[in-house]
Amino acid sequence: VTLDYACYACGRTASPPAARCVCGEPLWIDSDATDFDWPVDGPESMWRYRDVLPVDPPAGMGSVVGGTPLVRTAPLDDFAGARIHVKYEGTNPTGSFKDRGSAIGVVAAVESDANAVGTVSHGNMAMSVAATAASCATPCVVLVPADIPPERLDAIAAFDPTIVQVEGSYGDLYFDSYDVGRDLGIRFLNSDTPLRVEGQKTTAYEVCEAFAPGAPDAAVLPVSSGGHASGVWKALRELVAAGRLDALPRLYLAQSAACDPVAAAFRDGDDEVSATEAGETIAYSIANADPPSGTRALTAARETDGGVCAVTDDEIRAARDRLARDAGLRVEAASATSLAATRRLTDRGAIAADEDVVVVATGSGYGEAGAASPHRTTLADLRATLSELV
Amino acid sequence: VTLDYACYACGRTASPPAARCVCGEPLWIDSDATDFDWPVDGPESMWRYRDVLPVDPPAGMGSVVGGTPLVRTAPLDDFAGARIHVKYEGTNPTGSFKDRGSAIGVVAAVESDANAVGTVSHGNMAMSVAATAASCATPCVVLVPADIPPERLDAIAAFDPTIVQVEGSYGDLYFDSYDVGRDLGIRFLNSDTPLRVEGQKTTAYEVCEAFAPGAPDAAVLPVSSGGHASGVWKALRELVAAGRLDALPRLYLAQSAACDPVAAAFRDGDDEVSATEAGETIAYSIANADPPSGTRALTAARETDGGVCAVTDDEIRAARDRLARDAGLRVEAASATSLAATRRLTDRGAIAADEDVVVVATGSGYGEAGAASPHRTTLADLRATLSELV
Repeated sequence: VTLDYACYACGRTASPPAARCVCGEPLWIDSDATDFDWPVDGPESMWRYRDVLPVDPPAGMGSVVGGTPLVRTAPLDDFAGARIHVKYEGTNPTGSFKDRGSAIGVVAAVESDANAVGTVSHGNMAMSVAATAASCATPCVVLVPADIPPERLDAIAAFDPTIVQVEGSYGDLYFDSYDVGRDLGIRFLNSDTPLRVEGQKTTAYEVCEAFAPGAPDAAVLPVSSGGHASGVWKALRELVAAGRLDALPRLYLAQSAACDPVAAAFRDGDDEVSATEAGETIAYSIANADPPSGTRALTAARETDGGVCAVTDDEIRAARDRLARDAGLRVEAASATSLAATRRLTDRGAIAADEDVVVVATGSGYGEAGAASPHRTTLADLRATLSELV
Repeated sequence: VTLDYACYACGRTASPPAARCVCGEPLWIDSDATDFDWPVDGPESMWRYRDVLPVDPPAGMGSVVGGTPLVRTAPLDDFAGARIHVKYEGTNPTGSFKDRGSAIGVVAAVESDANAVGTVSHGNMAMSVAATAASCATPCVVLVPADIPPERLDAIAAFDPTIVQVEGSYGDLYFDSYDVGRDLGIRFLNSDTPLRVEGQKTTAYEVCEAFAPGAPDAAVLPVSSGGHASGVWKALRELVAAGRLDALPRLYLAQSAACDPVAAAFRDGDDEVSATEAGETIAYSIANADPPSGTRALTAARETDGGVCAVTDDEIRAARDRLARDAGLRVEAASATSLAATRRLTDRGAIAADEDVVVVATGSGYGEAGAASPHRTTLADLRATLSELV
């Protein structure tokens, strides 16, 4: 992978493996997709967009990432206040959108002379990088916080990566890992690396293809590091440059109110996202207090006439339950922030009732159970019991 | 849904909602698919086979079931002793193959005048029926054993069905539920109902389409009630009848040695499957001691020149770990029986090293964690620690 990097903010270019532009902002791959056109001919996976991706698909599990369903979920319209379409990323091989960026990143690492791939994550990204690396017979190092809950550690361990619990600032670890990795030949695929952003942009290509030649009015997605939002924004820019989108869908980003640095900057009219304190939230997957691509995500929301919205845990729980109970889609709490935010945005008139809104559900929620209130009976009393219940 | 039912064993026909033929064997839908041909033009879901299915797709989540990846997993060839392709059903909306049959069954219930749908299950099928019913705004009753572990109860509860814990024989409950359901207007979608079998056959249509105009040499799938095996066998028969398969792939069925009534009947040369005792096994999802379609599944294995094979928990664990660590695919223990059985079958020469074998992984395994052995370090010592590990 020899493509150059570019900075969205100042326009400077740089060469891999630079992690940041000299201006301080994150880089992305300087791709030229101006001859892209619909319809696309290719497999039902992210690799149908091979022409705008920097690497070829790997063999095995990485080859079937993406191609996730866009589900028109009319029963959610009343709750959300608009025409809702759920982009359900839970059907990726490891159950989250992270597989898209992991596939690009692991292939690039294999093509280079890296000794291993690595990531800094305590959740979906850790499982995704470990699984993708395993499928490519590439050693993998996962750096996790020292206080990671044991059940999450065990879930990552299923793919047998080298797991290291690191004491110290988790925010510093994100950047230190790049320096250490460069010296030791470990390609770190953290959440806003240019390779990962390149994979995440395929979410938006899929959504736009589903609406082509039109487009949805708005898209709402959870924001944590800002890497996914960056990828979606990059895709929209590429499609505009190629003449395949007349108007940008408005991009709205959702955070938990307990940890909302991007939403705070949007509310305050700031040009840059500043670090905040992370409070407790059920949406722990997106509780990033110092998002490395936060300012880029903020810019994406502003430039598309969208916005950033924070929601409470109660609102997140309500949205998560509606997704399961009205649409049959079980998502993790962090994913439900996008539906909760949509409800807020329609309440305040930012999104109209007749608009088509794509709500991105970034991961499945089978690890997050409900609370059962079962009835009890015996085989002999089954008929009597059911006749009262149904 | 007014299609007639037929008995594979005696050829008699019957009308819904009969659960069994008068000869005692299970029924399936008497479909006429003789004008079926490749290539198929349709969506990337089970509904691309609409021409051979009894109902139209629902709106919402049920419309995106199937279209699961068939992954060529060369790193597993050495372990398994053949050319392995994994049909990964974990990417269905609720994470298992059950969504296929649930979609057909719930649509049929909605089209009839049923008050509700129901199922007898303590795992994947319960979640699948509850989710599909939720997406169709159809009330749902889930009957579970009285001693179901609380975490499984909570997972089912996410979709908010009416859950009833029933004391008494779980085997009897399977059949009693049909009688009670008929009287109360609850359409029970248990594991070998004709509607469910009709949905499960799409697994085999997808596999055969991927190899068309050829076919894999063999397919290996876990067997519990025998409903899935029945659906796969029915698909193969339909494809032969339509002239789209020159030779049947050999169908091999896998069980846990702790509960292997179908494998025992195959070993002993019996014509019928008899109830056995269920021992403890990590493959609890398929520990069915008295499988309602056991004899039909046994017949499917014999008629296709395949077989039935039981494997130990140690073999299942080894296969599950290889799927995660070499192929990046995390499956539940029950799903790993098929890879474990493949290894046994190649060891004994039933499958040759140069044969293409489709291993069906029926469900994802994110609920079943590994056991982590993490290293520990500090941010300051990160470089030194990683340089020793990579």
